[in-house]
Amino acid sequence: MRLTDLLLGRSLANRELRQRKLGALEGVPAMGLDGLASSAYGPEAALTILAPLGVLGTRSIWIMGPVLMLLAILYVSYFQTLRAYPTSGGAYTVAKENLGREASLLAATALMIDYVLNVAVAISAGVGALTSALPSLGSHTLTICLVILGALTLVNLRGTREASRLWAVPTYVFVASFFALIALGIVKSLASGGAPRPVIAPPSLPRATEAVSAWLLLRAFASGCTAMTGIEAVSNSMDAFRDPVVKEGRRTLTAIVLILGILLAGIALLVFTYRIGAVNQAAPGYQSVLSQLASAVAGRGAFYYVAMASLLAVLCLSANTSFTGFPRLCRILAQDGFLPAPFAAVGRRLVYSVGIGYLAVTAGLLLAAFGGITDRLIPLFAIGAFLTFTLSQAGMVGHWLRELGQGARRDRARHRAQLAVNAAGTVATGTALAIIIAAKFLEGAWITLLAIPLVLALLHAIRRYYDELARQLGCLGPLDLRGAEPPIVLVAMESWSQLTERAVSFAVSLSPDVFAVHLTSLRGPDVEERKHDLLASWQRQVERPAKEAGLVPPRLVVLDAPHRKLHVPLLELMGRIEKRHPGRTIAVLVPEIMKQRWWENLLHTHRARRLRSALLHYGGSRTLVVSIPWYLEEPRIEDAVESARPTRRRA
Amino acid sequence: MRLTDLLLGRSLANRELRQRKLGALEGVPAMGLDGLASSAYGPEAALTILAPLGVLGTRSIWIMGPVLMLLAILYVSYFQTLRAYPTSGGAYTVAKENLGREASLLAATALMIDYVLNVAVAISAGVGALTSALPSLGSHTLTICLVILGALTLVNLRGTREASRLWAVPTYVFVASFFALIALGIVKSLASGGAPRPVIAPPSLPRATEAVSAWLLLRAFASGCTAMTGIEAVSNSMDAFRDPVVKEGRRTLTAIVLILGILLAGIALLVFTYRIGAVNQAAPGYQSVLSQLASAVAGRGAFYYVAMASLLAVLCLSANTSFTGFPRLCRILAQDGFLPAPFAAVGRRLVYSVGIGYLAVTAGLLLAAFGGITDRLIPLFAIGAFLTFTLSQAGMVGHWLRELGQGARRDRARHRAQLAVNAAGTVATGTALAIIIAAKFLEGAWITLLAIPLVLALLHAIRRYYDELARQLGCLGPLDLRGAEPPIVLVAMESWSQLTERAVSFAVSLSPDVFAVHLTSLRGPDVEERKHDLLASWQRQVERPAKEAGLVPPRLVVLDAPHRKLHVPLLELMGRIEKRHPGRTIAVLVPEIMKQRWWENLLHTHRARRLRSALLHYGGSRTLVVSIPWYLEEPRIEDAVESARPTRRRA
Repeated sequence: MRLTDLLLGRSLANRELRQRKLGALEGVPAMGLDGLASSAYGPEAALTILAPLGVLGTRSIWIMGPVLMLLAILYVSYFQTLRAYPTSGGAYTVAKENLGREASLLAATALMIDYVLNVAVAISAGVGALTSALPSLGSHTLTICLVILGALTLVNLRGTREASRLWAVPTYVFVASFFALIALGIVKSLASGGAPRPVIAPPSLPRATEAVSAWLLLRAFASGCTAMTGIEAVSNSMDAFRDPVVKEGRRTLTAIVLILGILLAGIALLVFTYRIGAVNQAAPGYQSVLSQLASAVAGRGAFYYVAMASLLAVLCLSANTSFTGFPRLCRILAQDGFLPAPFAAVGRRLVYSVGIGYLAVTAGLLLAAFGGITDRLIPLFAIGAFLTFTLSQAGMVGHWLRELGQGARRDRARHRAQLAVNAAGTVATGTALAIIIAAKFLEGAWITLLAIPLVLALLHAIRRYYDELARQLGCLGPLDLRGAEPPIVLVAMESWSQLTERAVSFAVSLSPDVFAVHLTSLRGPDVEERKHDLLASWQRQVERPAKEAGLVPPRLVVLDAPHRKLHVPLLELMGRIEKRHPGRTIAVLVPEIMKQRWWENLLHTHRARRLRSALLHYGGSRTLVVSIPWYLEEPRIEDAVESARPTRRRA
Repeated sequence: MRLTDLLLGRSLANRELRQRKLGALEGVPAMGLDGLASSAYGPEAALTILAPLGVLGTRSIWIMGPVLMLLAILYVSYFQTLRAYPTSGGAYTVAKENLGREASLLAATALMIDYVLNVAVAISAGVGALTSALPSLGSHTLTICLVILGALTLVNLRGTREASRLWAVPTYVFVASFFALIALGIVKSLASGGAPRPVIAPPSLPRATEAVSAWLLLRAFASGCTAMTGIEAVSNSMDAFRDPVVKEGRRTLTAIVLILGILLAGIALLVFTYRIGAVNQAAPGYQSVLSQLASAVAGRGAFYYVAMASLLAVLCLSANTSFTGFPRLCRILAQDGFLPAPFAAVGRRLVYSVGIGYLAVTAGLLLAAFGGITDRLIPLFAIGAFLTFTLSQAGMVGHWLRELGQGARRDRARHRAQLAVNAAGTVATGTALAIIIAAKFLEGAWITLLAIPLVLALLHAIRRYYDELARQLGCLGPLDLRGAEPPIVLVAMESWSQLTERAVSFAVSLSPDVFAVHLTSLRGPDVEERKHDLLASWQRQVERPAKEAGLVPPRLVVLDAPHRKLHVPLLELMGRIEKRHPGRTIAVLVPEIMKQRWWENLLHTHRARRLRSALLHYGGSRTLVVSIPWYLEEPRIEDAVESARPTRRRA
């Protein structure tokens, strides 16, 4: 079994694609982790803004109410989108269909930046929480980050199905334990008439230093909105679902939003009844809101540690959402010619390996550059999500407007309602976006705003290249069948051996104009002697039999390469031939000893390979390069076929 | 100017080789540094063995007398060798001519091991002396070692001439300052009647703990013999000299041996008169013998520091001798088929770049593995030198015996004398070798004794491969001119475009049996549609015009690659064709979009390149692969020629 088989699993056949698709049960861990992990950020981010209000800050957690409403609007909106665009309903596609190319590229750019940042931020946030629990690991932060990144990459290269199976356990443990926590908290609150006694009291709230203002509440709302980043993932990855696609996608989306909504509402309620506030993260003894909440409700028993461990795992694994969404987005962009073609190629495990690799490398560089502590990147990445939301909603508004224009009269009332939902969503997410940009511009959001036009320019440049390529390749005249003159044939040779014999014999059958070219790179007495030997054996073994057979004898040309670059004199010769015989094809025959075992590569100078590559590079379109392989052991075609076939499991 | 030009200098033409050759003045730094640096080891090594004798140990430094005699014998012997083998008189050549293949390979193996060890040991010894002078650098030992190794490599890749010019300054400063030191010491000794008062007194000698014994003296002699390692370098690198080669080589050898002899004799004399002993190197406040000597004779003024600094430089740079000798030795071995052919290839600066690179990498790994402290390797590497000496001497004995048999009668007396010199040398170096092995076996010499047969086995295995290759390539029948049937032509195609049009047009001119093979790797509605379009345009644009022109129309075959490895179905098709038409050549035409700028490589999937490589690898000798280049911008042959030509200096 080869190493790649062991690491990545056997190569999968195309027809296995259907079995690789996901249902809702696997969809939640594959695409929901980013969304669910947001429940750990969102309320805390809002409470941090509200902290200067003191006790009133905790009371103001009702601000999560509008956030939940916005979540509901987004849910209904994406629910509609999944039916309207069942193959891949991401913001890119929706915007492309309804708002045009520029808007769609803007959405794609925002999403791509978001996905990359999400990987670095999620892993470093999870590892940060881990090392704050176990400070002895602190000095290995970067190593742990990179190991987790490597594991995520490897599992995703094995396939989305494997990834979602592996991540299912921590995901569902997380959901179960926090649901239990919330239920217990609500029971205790009800039993105590709304003022439960915490098992472990949260840190007391500081005094108010500010009064309530509309701007503060708006900022708290904007920060709370980070709780819904990640819910666009389902719409971006529709092609990962099995049939019936729309149904499985909608189930997954519903499950994610429902779990997220329950978590957010429950957390907000318990924050209110237990009077929990955000603690300054930089202060010693920092405790996150969810940790305060769990200690207050259930104390620090085994349950607390299971819940916290699953939260840590979900934080780290929320990077996985990017691994599902980013390669798929890149693939669509590559198919449309805005990203390099390799992004659309399907790897051995039926995933888009280039996208996964690119994501891993970029995120790894980010992690390495920031030493594994990338918290400062957080302000950079809510922008992408809300820009995507807004463009997707606006696209759906366009979609319904068109449907209203074209659709049947009896659908009008329904379409109007759908239009209203998406219009409300556009306004709400657009407003949230404006607030986020205003509130976080100096904290780093400007970097995202600067990066977007650069990425856009790159996408356009790539597309221009492919357009030019397609234009030139498409300039077709009628098939040229005039039976042109035979090519002028050059045979590159080192000495008179089997290699050369086969090449010359083929050359003679191709054309009457054959030149064998002997390239010498060094001077010295040896070289002169070899040249002399070569001329003698050429006359005896080639020219004489050719003349006897009544053929034009192939000529031997000896060329000197004063700088030991063998292609230069050959190209010069070709230039002279081209001038004398304009329009004739020049075929260069390059015999090559094939290296069949890895170590044979060390024993040869690879002259033939380098010569071929230089001739193809500079030769021009009159040139053909014919590679003539020679083997120490004749290969069997069957072996190649066998070796390329995957090892079958007995499944 | 490109980076490689800046780092390595412009590419040199073959005709510039003569100007790149060395005379004696440059020869001493290029090949003598190892030998000269030995003057720092040798006396110290002997004194270390003699230390248990107390004051008597210093008196017993007369043991350097026999060492000097052995040096004289070696000098005369090598002086003779240079005339007898003026192209490359290394132990390998001498042993090959006179003792046979096995002895010569043994000598080569010993030399190669020695050269690699010398680089690591020399650099680490120099840096060790530097960091003991400036302890604050101690934590950067490995980094300093690797920087020095990198600089040596780079300068040697630029060429031997550059290296010897650069190293000339420290070499001649070292020689001048130690000559001055010795002269001053002798004058002071004479003036004081043999008992000079040291400016700074050396550490007092410890009490005797052992009595004089023959075994102790023998071991001291063996250790003192390390003073002559490195003097074989000139004979190994004769091809680096300019004409008259023998004269320049002999001058260089004479200069090196003369300087070394004066240094050794002077040091021994002053050790005797100033009563200097070796101090335990592990003890705190360790001072080397040369440092004690310089302080005793001249005190610690500016002169002392200049002398010590030049000594440090010479220690480090003594690694350079390996950079001159190792690549040349490897080249000769590669020419004889015992090392891979790339070792014989001449690089852009007319040096054997592969050998230099291999030496640098191996020494770098040794340095890294030992953290820059490789002193423990010293016992490993005197063996190589003395094995080389012994074999070289024994070879010369064989040489003179043959001369005596063949030569003129009047030369007999001279030849007998020469024979006597080499026979005495063989016995002396052989004895020294036996003593070194016995004394240092457990200290690490066993590693060398184990490594030698392994390297020998590798050399033989490489040679067997080349022999087999030559045998198979040489099996030549008469040139086959029967004008065989035209090949069966397969055209690999993706879509109907200019690429394919040119390939099909050439295919039709080659043979009536043309199949265009469309390879699909993925299923899905898109693929079916594309296949349909392709079939339609094939009928319209290829089959119809071909039929109208009265030709056999090329057929279109669509093959499915269920595992997305396009070469597999194509190879299977070729297997079927081969069975149906045994003996026919199969030419596969692979059109390829050429990437003319580096970033274009990122935008393509390199299908054509991978397909060609797999077909050549597995296709078998009935296969030809024809690469048909297509360019976005037609390349100009002149540009290629220009770009390969070096930038001329106005010199």
